Amino acid sequence: MNRKMVFNIFGRLIRIEGVLLLLPAAVSLIYKEYSGALIFAGVALGAAALGTLIRYTVRPDTQVIYAKEGFAVVTITWLGMSLIGALPFVISREIPNFVDAFFETVSGFTTTGASLVTNLPEWQKGMLFWRSFTHWLGGMGVLVFVMALANNLSDRTIHIMRAEMPGPVVGKLVPKVRDTAKILYLIYIFLTVAEMIFLCAGGMSLFESAIHSFGTAGTGGFSTRPESIGAFSPYIQWVVTAFMLLFGVNFNLYYLVLIKRFKAAIKSSELWVYLGIVAVSTVIMTVNVMPIYNDFGDSLRNAAFQSGAIVTTTGYATANFDVWPALSRGLIFVLLFLGGCAGSTAGGLKISRSMLLFKLVVREFKQLLRPRSVNRVTMDGKPVEEETLRSVATYFALYIIATAATFLLICFEPFSLETNLSAAVSCVNNVGPGFGEISPIGSYAGYTAFSKLVLSVAMLLGRLEIFPLIIALSPATWAKKAR
Amino acid sequence: MNRKMVFNIFGRLIRIEGVLLLLPAAVSLIYKEYSGALIFAGVALGAAALGTLIRYTVRPDTQVIYAKEGFAVVTITWLGMSLIGALPFVISREIPNFVDAFFETVSGFTTTGASLVTNLPEWQKGMLFWRSFTHWLGGMGVLVFVMALANNLSDRTIHIMRAEMPGPVVGKLVPKVRDTAKILYLIYIFLTVAEMIFLCAGGMSLFESAIHSFGTAGTGGFSTRPESIGAFSPYIQWVVTAFMLLFGVNFNLYYLVLIKRFKAAIKSSELWVYLGIVAVSTVIMTVNVMPIYNDFGDSLRNAAFQSGAIVTTTGYATANFDVWPALSRGLIFVLLFLGGCAGSTAGGLKISRSMLLFKLVVREFKQLLRPRSVNRVTMDGKPVEEETLRSVATYFALYIIATAATFLLICFEPFSLETNLSAAVSCVNNVGPGFGEISPIGSYAGYTAFSKLVLSVAMLLGRLEIFPLIIALSPATWAKKAR
Repeated sequence: MNRKMVFNIFGRLIRIEGVLLLLPAAVSLIYKEYSGALIFAGVALGAAALGTLIRYTVRPDTQVIYAKEGFAVVTITWLGMSLIGALPFVISREIPNFVDAFFETVSGFTTTGASLVTNLPEWQKGMLFWRSFTHWLGGMGVLVFVMALANNLSDRTIHIMRAEMPGPVVGKLVPKVRDTAKILYLIYIFLTVAEMIFLCAGGMSLFESAIHSFGTAGTGGFSTRPESIGAFSPYIQWVVTAFMLLFGVNFNLYYLVLIKRFKAAIKSSELWVYLGIVAVSTVIMTVNVMPIYNDFGDSLRNAAFQSGAIVTTTGYATANFDVWPALSRGLIFVLLFLGGCAGSTAGGLKISRSMLLFKLVVREFKQLLRPRSVNRVTMDGKPVEEETLRSVATYFALYIIATAATFLLICFEPFSLETNLSAAVSCVNNVGPGFGEISPIGSYAGYTAFSKLVLSVAMLLGRLEIFPLIIALSPATWAKKAR
Repeated sequence: MNRKMVFNIFGRLIRIEGVLLLLPAAVSLIYKEYSGALIFAGVALGAAALGTLIRYTVRPDTQVIYAKEGFAVVTITWLGMSLIGALPFVISREIPNFVDAFFETVSGFTTTGASLVTNLPEWQKGMLFWRSFTHWLGGMGVLVFVMALANNLSDRTIHIMRAEMPGPVVGKLVPKVRDTAKILYLIYIFLTVAEMIFLCAGGMSLFESAIHSFGTAGTGGFSTRPESIGAFSPYIQWVVTAFMLLFGVNFNLYYLVLIKRFKAAIKSSELWVYLGIVAVSTVIMTVNVMPIYNDFGDSLRNAAFQSGAIVTTTGYATANFDVWPALSRGLIFVLLFLGGCAGSTAGGLKISRSMLLFKLVVREFKQLLRPRSVNRVTMDGKPVEEETLRSVATYFALYIIATAATFLLICFEPFSLETNLSAAVSCVNNVGPGFGEISPIGSYAGYTAFSKLVLSVAMLLGRLEIFPLIIALSPATWAKKAR
């Protein structure tokens, strides 16, 4: 493996985290939280120094990187950034325990939004900003961001992008990876700013608009309020619903719209299945919660919000769905697994993977009935390669194994089976809330440090889609003469 | 499709069910339950007449059958036998409601052991016998049984056996299918009788020994007591534990032992993984329940029994594991999915499938690291065909989809998520008990008729491994000019 190149890129990325930490420092200054500003500035300086040191001491002989290097870079960067990102919380004593702070930061970067903070209203503004800004950074991918900026990385970096971007297939929109990354980030920024404007227009403060736009954009879920979006007006709730759904769409479709290929964008079957699932779920829940709200508008709004929040894996809430009737709770449990579209900021299994699995099953039936027939699986009219199908089916097995392993490791916790199971599922799928102890009005604070670390790893597994993390942690990957 | 042949075989099988119904009639007579004897004799006569009528009116032009016909025969036979098998319960008013009786009979034939009977001690002996005898028949496979008897079926019947026998691969032990079926049934009978002797030796009545041997042999779980095996002595509990484990082993291994190929039998990696899982689970649960029983022997016995009962999908119980600590409950929840060895009477996913899935995942990692390398998956030293791997991975997806669909269809029931989820998982995997409402001391009686039908289908899906049922229910299968 090209270890030098891996560490070199890692160095650059840590330096960039240092630069990014100046943003919350500035926010702290604006709100006259001088101790907070000092903390951010200090950590920023430390990260930048460390990054620069690594970058200039580890000089690669060659820029060539392969899939393996991509996995390794992504894994150590996400771990490193979470470790550094946790420091401001610990030093400011907003989250005095380091494991807790690490959990919260991983939850931020992985856009899970699982929180163990129970005293949000007392938090410094700068700290709140940093906590939610990690969502925004993690949503589109930290490394994708760097690729958009860097101008001296080879085009081999598609391996990094593949390792970091969610979904079964990552293609390039345009020939150059760097340009693809730039386009993705421009769309991302545009949509985020659009949401901020809509939220401000509804009377939300600029600060809270920014926080909740970050949380929506990354499909994260951190809020400034213990009641989450439930603390705001119905208008705000609808705006957030709409933007959650927008950020759960494959960003390639926005690019198609940009270059005026509307027809191609609208033809995406994944888009329609995604919207169909949200619509069906909204209808069922609306009917199901009517007896609680006694009002069609309220029921519809809450049903649509919770459906969108779970399917897009954002995890914001306007209601404590843990006290909803059994049908809605059951539906939410199953939706926890699905996730948004591939190539979006959403976590989970991804709609396109579920579709391919379903198509695989249908093909198996055809094959059983006529053993000698040849049946190709197609998606949007194009044949899907056997290798992609194989890897989707294998990923699904791995994903269920990872979820089961996470659950088994935390199931000793003295909570209900519902709580522990939904915690495992919610973390692996980067949703955030679950049932019982970790319901929208609960928190992960009750878990032991061991379980918090297990769930942190589960969140990383989910966000990076399992393979990179395990490959990067295998000693064989780091052997000198592997290739 | 060769529809005539399908119905012809169906006719023969229904006739055989008529003959088999004379057994509980005899039991009723012995216990002087004359009304019961009359009911069984009547239903027996009706079934035999119906079967004979179908057999001789639908005469096939050719004996040739393929996979499709195998699936169709198995599906309509299992449905037909369950409908007829439910009649004695309804007529005797032991289970007055037909849907309830159907659920109980499907649960019997599929060896699930999920019960909605709450007044067991008041039941007639003959009815108890029939209820448990369905386990014994369903365990090895009703159609396999017929093949062992019939002497004028072509060797094409391997397709029937493949459709009915659980596990990823069904081979022939000896060249002739009929001989294979005979050997399997002889082993089955031998083990069942052996268990009866051991149980009688422990002071259990001959009647209850038979009932519980049927329940163990088919890995079913119906008992004569509301407390299940918990009503009997520790000796009995250990005997049942041992036999549950024996019936969870691939029967091919017993054949290997019979022909003195001990080495080949002991080399089976599935066997060791299976025993390893039971052992690890027993150790964990023993430690975990020590505070409850305050005695190492009691803890070990209960832990071993429950581990064996769940892994082999028998579902007998000596303790209400629903009140055990979170760790044991979590472990049991995950074990509900696994199942015993392929080629055993156990339900569930099957150990060998889990092993192949795991090997597939490992190969994917190797492939990701070295895209051009060729990695063959092997099992017991032999390479596994790509087609088998593909179908195992697809089956897994289908199996999870089926479980999720079952859960979604019953999750409106006003029980806890734990209850509904474990009901779906337990029925698809043919285990029986679950958590909450359906714990070892609970029952399925609280479910609505709709959910009982959904769960009946789920049990059939699980027992027949999904494909046969769906293929047989698709109209395309029944088209005249399909091939």
